[in-house]
Amino acid sequence: MKQNKYDDPTFFTEYAKMPRSIDGLAASGEWQALRETLPDFRGKRVLDLGCGYGWHCQFAYEHGASEVVGIDISAKMIERAIELTHAGNVRYEQTAIEDFEAAPGSFDIILSSLALHYVRDLGPVFAKAAELLASGGTFCYSVEHPLFTSREQQDWSYDADGQIAHWPVDNYFHEGQRTTAFLGADVVKYHRTVESHFKALLAAGFSVESLVEPAPPMEMVKEKGWEDELRRPMMLILRAVKA
Amino acid sequence: MKQNKYDDPTFFTEYAKMPRSIDGLAASGEWQALRETLPDFRGKRVLDLGCGYGWHCQFAYEHGASEVVGIDISAKMIERAIELTHAGNVRYEQTAIEDFEAAPGSFDIILSSLALHYVRDLGPVFAKAAELLASGGTFCYSVEHPLFTSREQQDWSYDADGQIAHWPVDNYFHEGQRTTAFLGADVVKYHRTVESHFKALLAAGFSVESLVEPAPPMEMVKEKGWEDELRRPMMLILRAVKA
Repeated sequence: MKQNKYDDPTFFTEYAKMPRSIDGLAASGEWQALRETLPDFRGKRVLDLGCGYGWHCQFAYEHGASEVVGIDISAKMIERAIELTHAGNVRYEQTAIEDFEAAPGSFDIILSSLALHYVRDLGPVFAKAAELLASGGTFCYSVEHPLFTSREQQDWSYDADGQIAHWPVDNYFHEGQRTTAFLGADVVKYHRTVESHFKALLAAGFSVESLVEPAPPMEMVKEKGWEDELRRPMMLILRAVKA
Repeated sequence: MKQNKYDDPTFFTEYAKMPRSIDGLAASGEWQALRETLPDFRGKRVLDLGCGYGWHCQFAYEHGASEVVGIDISAKMIERAIELTHAGNVRYEQTAIEDFEAAPGSFDIILSSLALHYVRDLGPVFAKAAELLASGGTFCYSVEHPLFTSREQQDWSYDADGQIAHWPVDNYFHEGQRTTAFLGADVVKYHRTVESHFKALLAAGFSVESLVEPAPPMEMVKEKGWEDELRRPMMLILRAVKA
């Protein structure tokens, strides 16, 4: 059973309060790094797996994509995306990432932002991505960093005074389900190693072009008091090309 | 000033007592993964950066390399390599990794095992590696994992009963020198992120073919009681090809 947490009304309401939900890409610590890693959208057919509010679809459209499809398992997300970011050639569709179907070679760029850690098996999804891409097409995605997802708690270790001591890692090589607390609910994510991401891409016929561990830009660190974000990586971005 | 810790007699004596020093590759938890990542040596000219006792040079020679050069900054290491693993077409030379010189295109394979975390700047070393390799040549190396080198202590966090609680990570994005205790001495290593390894390879003109986080094989875990080695990655292996 695929998780559709975002159609839980309480969860969706909490998600709507996050800075990245209110202010979009500019409020996301990883956006600058992701933007630098994304390919040129001009004239490209783009698919966004787990599009959420559609900020990345909007960005692709505004940067010259010839066609943009955003899919999400959550009806509420798709509804919100249509309200917020629907424009021009952007099309939204309520579908789970694992279930999306289209003709082989239908896209030039597939992207996915912070959605694939909700997917149990990367293999079939990456194989589908390779099939949907035209030859030479680009697959670019961000996920929570394996160092961040190793423990279910996904929280810092604190010292006796309640100050952050360090980031704890454990069970790194024990891949699989982690049930973590997020926005007041239990959310199921899947922990896998950096190696597993890399190997899954190779197995699907991709070459890996970029591996990025985004840290927030220094001006955001200062402005938002995010110094602790420099103590451990929270996200991982990979860009791969279909050979 | 390049560090030459292995010519310190006490340090060298302590190093000689490590299982990997006594029993060679078979006693190294990462060897099976490294072996699977190494390219075919048959007919190839091979350079080993930081060869230590020369186990990898011997392996390359025994697997068909046409020529093998092992370099190490430590005179004691080179002396020991000549005693232990000198055979056939293997040549050892006492030189720092940063200082080695040879004609462009002199090698088909460059490898390095657990030496590059002692090097302050990867950029010039990777540029040199690219220059020394023939077109299509392979660069394959292991280093201590960035998750392992983030803190100077390089030790577990323990609970009140003295049991391992987890592996602590801190200052991940603060790259640079770490002075860590190893074999009873202070050793200077350089922490860098996974992204930095990847980018340094790309910047030198390589494509990254493999990224491996070696866990010891399960039979070693059981035999040696290494269950804790599955709790965090200790090493990182990268294989890249000169475009």
